[in-house]
Amino acid sequence: MISKTRIETDSMGKIEVPSNVYWGAQTQRSLQNFRIGDERQRMPLSIIRAFGILKKAAAIVNIKAGRLDEKIGKVMIQSAEEIIRGELNDHFPLVVWQTGSGTQTNMNVNEVISNRSIEILGGEMGTKKPVHPNDHVNLGQSSNDTFPTAMHISARQDIDSVLIPGLNELYQALLEKSQKFSKIIKIGRTHCQDAVPLTLGQEFSGYAQQLKYSIRRINSTLESLSELAIGGTAVGTGLNTFEKFDVMVSEEISKITNIQFKPAENKFEALAAHDAIVETSGALNTTAVSLMKIANDIRFLSSGPRTGFGEIILPPNEPGSSIMPGKVNPTQCEALTMVCGQVMGNHVAITVGGANGHFELNVFKPMMIYNLLHSIRILGDACRSFAKNCVVGIKPNKKRIANFLDQSLMLVTALNPYIGYDKSAIVAKTAFEKGITLKEAVIELELMTGEEFDERVKPENMLSPIKLVIDKK
Amino acid sequence: MISKTRIETDSMGKIEVPSNVYWGAQTQRSLQNFRIGDERQRMPLSIIRAFGILKKAAAIVNIKAGRLDEKIGKVMIQSAEEIIRGELNDHFPLVVWQTGSGTQTNMNVNEVISNRSIEILGGEMGTKKPVHPNDHVNLGQSSNDTFPTAMHISARQDIDSVLIPGLNELYQALLEKSQKFSKIIKIGRTHCQDAVPLTLGQEFSGYAQQLKYSIRRINSTLESLSELAIGGTAVGTGLNTFEKFDVMVSEEISKITNIQFKPAENKFEALAAHDAIVETSGALNTTAVSLMKIANDIRFLSSGPRTGFGEIILPPNEPGSSIMPGKVNPTQCEALTMVCGQVMGNHVAITVGGANGHFELNVFKPMMIYNLLHSIRILGDACRSFAKNCVVGIKPNKKRIANFLDQSLMLVTALNPYIGYDKSAIVAKTAFEKGITLKEAVIELELMTGEEFDERVKPENMLSPIKLVIDKK
Amino acid sequence: MISKTRIETDSMGKIEVPSNVYWGAQTQRSLQNFRIGDERQRMPLSIIRAFGILKKAAAIVNIKAGRLDEKIGKVMIQSAEEIIRGELNDHFPLVVWQTGSGTQTNMNVNEVISNRSIEILGGEMGTKKPVHPNDHVNLGQSSNDTFPTAMHISARQDIDSVLIPGLNELYQALLEKSQKFSKIIKIGRTHCQDAVPLTLGQEFSGYAQQLKYSIRRINSTLESLSELAIGGTAVGTGLNTFEKFDVMVSEEISKITNIQFKPAENKFEALAAHDAIVETSGALNTTAVSLMKIANDIRFLSSGPRTGFGEIILPPNEPGSSIMPGKVNPTQCEALTMVCGQVMGNHVAITVGGANGHFELNVFKPMMIYNLLHSIRILGDACRSFAKNCVVGIKPNKKRIANFLDQSLMLVTALNPYIGYDKSAIVAKTAFEKGITLKEAVIELELMTGEEFDERVKPENMLSPIKLVIDKK
Amino acid sequence: MISKTRIETDSMGKIEVPSNVYWGAQTQRSLQNFRIGDERQRMPLSIIRAFGILKKAAAIVNIKAGRLDEKIGKVMIQSAEEIIRGELNDHFPLVVWQTGSGTQTNMNVNEVISNRSIEILGGEMGTKKPVHPNDHVNLGQSSNDTFPTAMHISARQDIDSVLIPGLNELYQALLEKSQKFSKIIKIGRTHCQDAVPLTLGQEFSGYAQQLKYSIRRINSTLESLSELAIGGTAVGTGLNTFEKFDVMVSEEISKITNIQFKPAENKFEALAAHDAIVETSGALNTTAVSLMKIANDIRFLSSGPRTGFGEIILPPNEPGSSIMPGKVNPTQCEALTMVCGQVMGNHVAITVGGANGHFELNVFKPMMIYNLLHSIRILGDACRSFAKNCVVGIKPNKKRIANFLDQSLMLVTALNPYIGYDKSAIVAKTAFEKGITLKEAVIELELMTGEEFDERVKPENMLSPIKLVIDKK
Repeated sequence: MISKTRIETDSMGKIEVPSNVYWGAQTQRSLQNFRIGDERQRMPLSIIRAFGILKKAAAIVNIKAGRLDEKIGKVMIQSAEEIIRGELNDHFPLVVWQTGSGTQTNMNVNEVISNRSIEILGGEMGTKKPVHPNDHVNLGQSSNDTFPTAMHISARQDIDSVLIPGLNELYQALLEKSQKFSKIIKIGRTHCQDAVPLTLGQEFSGYAQQLKYSIRRINSTLESLSELAIGGTAVGTGLNTFEKFDVMVSEEISKITNIQFKPAENKFEALAAHDAIVETSGALNTTAVSLMKIANDIRFLSSGPRTGFGEIILPPNEPGSSIMPGKVNPTQCEALTMVCGQVMGNHVAITVGGANGHFELNVFKPMMIYNLLHSIRILGDACRSFAKNCVVGIKPNKKRIANFLDQSLMLVTALNPYIGYDKSAIVAKTAFEKGITLKEAVIELELMTGEEFDERVKPENMLSPIKLVIDKK
Repeated sequence: MISKTRIETDSMGKIEVPSNVYWGAQTQRSLQNFRIGDERQRMPLSIIRAFGILKKAAAIVNIKAGRLDEKIGKVMIQSAEEIIRGELNDHFPLVVWQTGSGTQTNMNVNEVISNRSIEILGGEMGTKKPVHPNDHVNLGQSSNDTFPTAMHISARQDIDSVLIPGLNELYQALLEKSQKFSKIIKIGRTHCQDAVPLTLGQEFSGYAQQLKYSIRRINSTLESLSELAIGGTAVGTGLNTFEKFDVMVSEEISKITNIQFKPAENKFEALAAHDAIVETSGALNTTAVSLMKIANDIRFLSSGPRTGFGEIILPPNEPGSSIMPGKVNPTQCEALTMVCGQVMGNHVAITVGGANGHFELNVFKPMMIYNLLHSIRILGDACRSFAKNCVVGIKPNKKRIANFLDQSLMLVTALNPYIGYDKSAIVAKTAFEKGITLKEAVIELELMTGEEFDERVKPENMLSPIKLVIDKK
Repeated sequence: MISKTRIETDSMGKIEVPSNVYWGAQTQRSLQNFRIGDERQRMPLSIIRAFGILKKAAAIVNIKAGRLDEKIGKVMIQSAEEIIRGELNDHFPLVVWQTGSGTQTNMNVNEVISNRSIEILGGEMGTKKPVHPNDHVNLGQSSNDTFPTAMHISARQDIDSVLIPGLNELYQALLEKSQKFSKIIKIGRTHCQDAVPLTLGQEFSGYAQQLKYSIRRINSTLESLSELAIGGTAVGTGLNTFEKFDVMVSEEISKITNIQFKPAENKFEALAAHDAIVETSGALNTTAVSLMKIANDIRFLSSGPRTGFGEIILPPNEPGSSIMPGKVNPTQCEALTMVCGQVMGNHVAITVGGANGHFELNVFKPMMIYNLLHSIRILGDACRSFAKNCVVGIKPNKKRIANFLDQSLMLVTALNPYIGYDKSAIVAKTAFEKGITLKEAVIELELMTGEEFDERVKPENMLSPIKLVIDKK
Repeated sequence: MISKTRIETDSMGKIEVPSNVYWGAQTQRSLQNFRIGDERQRMPLSIIRAFGILKKAAAIVNIKAGRLDEKIGKVMIQSAEEIIRGELNDHFPLVVWQTGSGTQTNMNVNEVISNRSIEILGGEMGTKKPVHPNDHVNLGQSSNDTFPTAMHISARQDIDSVLIPGLNELYQALLEKSQKFSKIIKIGRTHCQDAVPLTLGQEFSGYAQQLKYSIRRINSTLESLSELAIGGTAVGTGLNTFEKFDVMVSEEISKITNIQFKPAENKFEALAAHDAIVETSGALNTTAVSLMKIANDIRFLSSGPRTGFGEIILPPNEPGSSIMPGKVNPTQCEALTMVCGQVMGNHVAITVGGANGHFELNVFKPMMIYNLLHSIRILGDACRSFAKNCVVGIKPNKKRIANFLDQSLMLVTALNPYIGYDKSAIVAKTAFEKGITLKEAVIELELMTGEEFDERVKPENMLSPIKLVIDKK
């Protein structure tokens, strides 16, 4: 099937473009020069959306400043809004693996807004009239400041809409479990070995705390992300734009997104480095570390049903084994831990990209934001999935927990005050060697009665420090 | 728009599935339970294709062994071939972030082959008759051995079809340049500082050597990848399959793919660990390191046009600057270095996944192969793009190279035999302080004539060790 | 040479220990069981010092609480102070690669304080009388809460005493240069290619900003590090200690160190996870990314002397080349970038360690803190070295900077308002092709006079956005 | 205490050096300019030893070639041998964080050999007569080719003497256990959940296989490491040395070390890149992944004593708990997994260093080899420690293993041929819900007698594929 084409031009000359797309010459060249990966490698849609927001904001400001004809500007805003709503997604075919400044994606956006606006205005696409991709859509801008601006907008938006809600949902689910399980006393484990008791609620409170801190850590990076490079233009000086353009565009973006943005304190830093992206990725990395720990614990605590720890029971979401009841594979843990490993890997990619900028421009921009948005998205989604499909449905296996607690030899420490350390050790040794419980051992050794044992060995008294009245002289 | 559905069932009961898809109950449950990332996060198609190959091979072997009805088996093979040809890609909607064993993708394949075969045979989809996803399509197999088998097949195929050709193309391009540039003497640089001369060809020969070794490194991992887990079934013992199933299936896969495969030497290792994937990723990581160095050099050697090193000129593939001729952004270098950073990050993700398997099964399988295939693909594609759109078109800037060589003070070392170390140092110091050439300095210092200087300071004599006749007593 | 020994005992029995050391049985066993690496692999001295501080604080509190005999306690405090002052460093021979809880180092400290106190009190070392390593020195404590407490104390102290001062020194040095260089106009570079101008001061202001943010990033992790695990004892419940022990010990530690510490909000989290360490390492990683960028820029900006960018001149600290003046190898940049790479690697080690804790105890503690302290130390030292031995002495190569600016073709953009875009492009093209300056080109093309050119092309007018009066209707 | 000094000189002038050390001016300057880290950060002794070997070999060859006076050369050889034997270790005070080419360490070696030789010959240290550090000791060499040569020598030596023996010892220990445990049938676990049985020997055979492959992987990198950069001098061309110098020195080094070395195929690659180091580190990374898996399994399999998997019993090497018998902390697993995490981190540092070389010289040399030697050493030592202090002493907990096998519900699959899939599922469900064994369930359900059950459910028949006679038509 031969599709129709039209001619588009740029400073290198003419090039054929399919007639049913809005993109122009520079997009088309990029498509041909960067055949790296399939369509799954395309620039993330969150970036495209953020560009739509930025272009809309810039048009508003340029109209206000009298630099852009109002009629033209309004159509450009209309086109940008279509991008924001995702209606033109098919017109952004470029992959991440292009120019390291993201110039080609900025031009893709410029070309699409130009041609779509021309179409609305009844003009001929490709003529750049009356809406020119550079002179109008990119007015007072450069790829070098727009791409980093779109990086920050998209990261902030996805953090707000996907990641924080996901973390919060998981935090709430863990917190609720920690409260619900607050009376269930279980054996603790250090070095994976039996240790002194704690409650299942206390155990889950540790997980909840990790989530609480994850949210704090991510929030603490938002200040960096709220700084926008816009207004820096080509090298950070702001050449070809006007004073306050940065402030005004940041304000418009804040209005559109309902997120507070401001111009970067130092535009040279904002173009030449993307430390804010590395910083945010660092917080995601710490979050991944937390989640890996939690998911691993839950996977092991639910191991069994017969020959593992088996202290908790996960909700069965899918057939674990077609014949064996009780075999519930911890698939949500598995998805989450895979996501965590990915986030750690993405963090290294971002680190490498961030470290290798030169002079006035870092040229690992698309790769850096691709990885950050990837991490944000899968982490947020996985947290929600894990909360909803796993944590919420966790049930304690009370019988097993009690049985383990009963069997544990670590409770022997409670006997010290009554029979002394040495005899306690003999009790433990006897129980261990004969494979009996401590209670059975004290009875066999005729050290105390079963009733005495029960009264003295109370795990519920081992769950907190003692109260001590200190004489403050 | 309400789409029609049919009922599918698994051991958890009934579930509605769109009537126009071949997948069944377990796929549908996974879709609902793992909403992590968008469709770009789907299991790589190379894995789906590899599963098609494996299922075809297993059917052939099961027919031969008399375990599978020949009529049913042939339709299954036909269905598997449709998968191999990519005709059923839309029927594999599951994301990477699912069960860590890849069970759900194995079941997705089983369900699609079952339903497609039922369709071909005129049956009713969802009835599992006459082709059952487990009893027939998964016969003598388990997710635990099929998924790792598909991992190795897909990695080998993509290495052969994308990565090695890409590396070879780049190797050839660099080698050719190294030969073409063999007479162009230029200043060397150590610590980024002017040093003694070498030829541009020698410089490029180092790059070519790096590529040559990259190919060797990747090839040396193929032995590990050629081992297939098939025949291990659930835990590595081969329960529920028959002796030689592994050998026979490996042979069939070898025939289909034209790549030599064999059963894993130890099936327990092949299910519980994926060290072969980590090993291969290590070779890709080393390759990324090599390519980062080369692309960085080329980016800097072409810096300018006026105020950089500017010793080579890159082909302009797209507008660098709409007004400034000669500004050729090293965009192919940028795409390649971004890819390199990504491969390094993917390597860490794979490392984390590989290290965290437990007991009889590693459950980071989908994440590991997703990253490996990602690295293979973008590395191979980027090499080809870099070779074709950059290296092949590199031209030396002979004038600048000669000018730099002429200006360099490091050639002063050639004067030692004539005027001694001390006077040579004075020559260099004079040239440096006055901003003149060495030749101008020797003349000014009246140490020799310009003709003498030209005869004695010949960069072409500084490009190799001296010949020395050693008296072997 | 046979050295004398004495007998020490623990619950496994007797063991010979050199008579001239203070350590006891458990230290000796660790020495024999963990022969991993040489003495360079020993537990960092900052950890030993932090343990001294903690043991002193715990003794003070236990005396106050009436749990520890005052006479014994005071000698213990004296011994702990010797540790703090580094006088007993030789008595801490254990390597990092030991028990993952750091138990053996906690016992090493307990044993040394016990034996040293016994010695002071005139007792016999090894008898554990009158100062017992467990009953007195470890009173109300566990390795599981003391080691993480020492981790946070040591990290905070080293950040305060080494890292922040180092970063500050470098920040000040860069800031000063940015002010000093504020009038030096130079060519900007994007994609490593000539771009529009900025001042050298603006360029350095970006570096200074990166340092400013690095300090902010590190400071933002101090809140997490200020939380101490002490009081959690074995599993986080505080068993075997008393209420407020955590608060009182934290207060004492704050007094001793002059740093504000407080008990961990959740002790279960504080033992089972070390996310605070991962978080802090993340900030160091971002800092390393910043420093890598800066050091790379400075290395390239000083490349030459003849055939590089050569816009700045580094202070020569050592012979670069024995014969070639002006060859100043950027050795401080090299040391710093090596440190940055190390910090990135250490970060991954910390990430892996943090992610792999299980249940009530993370057992990668020694490895995690070893890497964090390593990063803190070399980063802080390298910043100071880089500031003092490199940045402070940087001088602009004004002649070269001016020459490059003069040669640059990017200034052509300033001609647009006078001769239009098209003619400007012809000027640039002519200059590029003939290898002449823009000024020479306009004269040759008879577009304007040299005087006109000089008046119109003023780089100093290209350093900021234009002022625009916006009519606010 | 004021120590005496003498004056040393270099091209920058005079400098005071302690009179009791052999080092000279350039070492002293480095000491003062690079105060980064304490003495633990010194250049690894393996590098110093390798330099001794190289300098000895170079002296031998230079004598043979008639370029070095035999009398002087012999004393230099004697001095180099003292370095090789470690007798002059105190004279190498420089840290890793110095010039990225390692120049200062090369000069440190040159200076020490010079001064020590002068001392032997009765001259005055510091005069450089009759043995000059550059003219004699560095004859025909450059830091740029000697340091990479020492990198490869030291890595090869430490791999041979520490790593391979350590891996072999662990391999043998695991293999022996796998044979010893070949009759012990246990429950398998996939997804950490009960699965079909295998033998403990089969489980350990997987570990042994991982070690076998680790050794193969490391061996496959030795070819790259066997290539030496010597003969490339400053930029790879071999300027200032003579043809065959590379071959002759490589042969001498081979003789001294008893390891086969050869000149690098391409000297430009050998100076400008250290891909061989990255490659080797990649093999160590894969090995760390393998060991992490094994150590984690062993840690979990020995968890308990009462409330974990507890299928194996580790040798108690130190007190786990002073009161609780049977609590054996898996400390060797912990040390080993910490080492594995470190190796993964070191690998990233090496990767970053390898990727960031420029032009004719990679200047991350000291950092790269520091990390590689670190990984080699701790990995080798930890393997030996783990083998000796843990694996060799592992005992199966046969009672628990049998008990678990007995309890497991997965054996129900063996009933399919007798009572069909549906009834088998009812048996499993009944057993699961009532908390009884399968045998108890079949009896209760009156499906078969206990004897029949015992005869039919034989785990020993579930350990391998069935034999099938295939009719080859």
